[in-house]
Amino acid sequence: MADSRAIGVFDSGLGGLTVVKELIKCLPDENIVYFGDTGRVPYGTRSREIIRRYAAEDEAFLIKHDVKLIIAACGTVSSVAADTAKGLPVPFFEVVSHAVRAAVAATKNKKIGIIGTSATVNSGEHKRQILNLLPEAQVTDCSCSMFVPLVEEGWYSADDIVVLETVRRYLEPVIKAGVDTLILGCTHYPVLSSAISKVLGDGVTLINAGTATAAAVKQFLNENGGLNGENNNAQHIFYVSDKPDSFRHTASILLGEDIDETKVERVDISSL
Amino acid sequence: MADSRAIGVFDSGLGGLTVVKELIKCLPDENIVYFGDTGRVPYGTRSREIIRRYAAEDEAFLIKHDVKLIIAACGTVSSVAADTAKGLPVPFFEVVSHAVRAAVAATKNKKIGIIGTSATVNSGEHKRQILNLLPEAQVTDCSCSMFVPLVEEGWYSADDIVVLETVRRYLEPVIKAGVDTLILGCTHYPVLSSAISKVLGDGVTLINAGTATAAAVKQFLNENGGLNGENNNAQHIFYVSDKPDSFRHTASILLGEDIDETKVERVDISSL
Repeated sequence: MADSRAIGVFDSGLGGLTVVKELIKCLPDENIVYFGDTGRVPYGTRSREIIRRYAAEDEAFLIKHDVKLIIAACGTVSSVAADTAKGLPVPFFEVVSHAVRAAVAATKNKKIGIIGTSATVNSGEHKRQILNLLPEAQVTDCSCSMFVPLVEEGWYSADDIVVLETVRRYLEPVIKAGVDTLILGCTHYPVLSSAISKVLGDGVTLINAGTATAAAVKQFLNENGGLNGENNNAQHIFYVSDKPDSFRHTASILLGEDIDETKVERVDISSL
Repeated sequence: MADSRAIGVFDSGLGGLTVVKELIKCLPDENIVYFGDTGRVPYGTRSREIIRRYAAEDEAFLIKHDVKLIIAACGTVSSVAADTAKGLPVPFFEVVSHAVRAAVAATKNKKIGIIGTSATVNSGEHKRQILNLLPEAQVTDCSCSMFVPLVEEGWYSADDIVVLETVRRYLEPVIKAGVDTLILGCTHYPVLSSAISKVLGDGVTLINAGTATAAAVKQFLNENGGLNGENNNAQHIFYVSDKPDSFRHTASILLGEDIDETKVERVDISSL
């Protein structure tokens, strides 16, 4: 039996749209409901207790929309609040563990790099999980605070000197360490893939958490009979808790295509 | 009679420390109490109603600390919530009007530029006030979204290619317009003054809202007998509603000197 219920995805903001992009590529028949908590972004700088409360509210919001599975497309939630999903009536996926597994599978020299926001890097969650799977791995991590603002400003071209010089500066420790695999530990970063590859060269495999997670979700649904049937009219609905003027521009950069504004609805945070 | 009560300064975050820096320079005998609402930063993307509530809470917090005067060192509050100060028992200063007056006094060719965050530029408040004082002025404004992240990352040197290229890109409309005066419409921007001057040349006067406001406060206290007496031990106390790991680094960049951590206290937002 095909399960036509949507896949639910949430994030603290719009970064999770890069995960939606990979889901659409990997699972084109699936309906998707996205919730971006743009009114309370960023989560990374907030206390653990607050992040856990927000995550639980975001999950409850998606459950109300009758999703068959929930993805926390948010590094912060994946790192500190994944267990808020324990009581959920549907399967739950986060982005860190799938990126880590993909990186461990990809590395040959066992030198793995991680880049992310300072909150994600400081949490040490990727590193912990890598060493758990591959204790002899050498892990180099660095936070790249300017990457999110660069992406949101639309400055991500691999021909832009500001972009290339910024990427080069942050990636210096990763280059020095000689990693052959780099986890893009923030959902905004896949937008910078071309620039990062130009700086690192083709010898370094970039791990996009969205690609890794979409593949894991596909396998899970396949194995558990949860896939939707053939569907030429998959619905992608987007809810946000705030919609600033720059929304459309930023959303289209992250989703990789123009967002259909008729499919975007603003949700009152206080109703969450 | 000398009035030894402190001058109260608040901002949505740490940007207001550039105003404190100018106050210390201009009024070295004065005690200062600063409140940075780092737990709820940024205000610029929030609704008018929320900004007004936050501003009123910030003002009430300073009043509890027995200040003699309050400065809203925040472009957003100055633009949309200055009237929340109407019922205050002490004089109130905001940063927009003093920057505007300084710009109008400085310009010779009546071509004035304004740079700020997109929230500040979109509010149009500087432009409105300039045209009110100088109806024939030609005003060019542009938002520079990357400037705050650059400053907070510590990338502000006039010798840094990323900084110079970013400044050049944003200031293109202002250069084309031939302005002779540029308002730094965001409290973070004075940190970039050297880089901005290098790009624009010495012919353009940069208006620092902190300098303009400090001068106005000094004049007001002088005229109203509100100055403190000679004081070799002026106290500068800082309250913040959140204190992330990067606090000390960012605060010292904006204040222009290392911040004395024993003078920094964290305040619970829910108590505001």
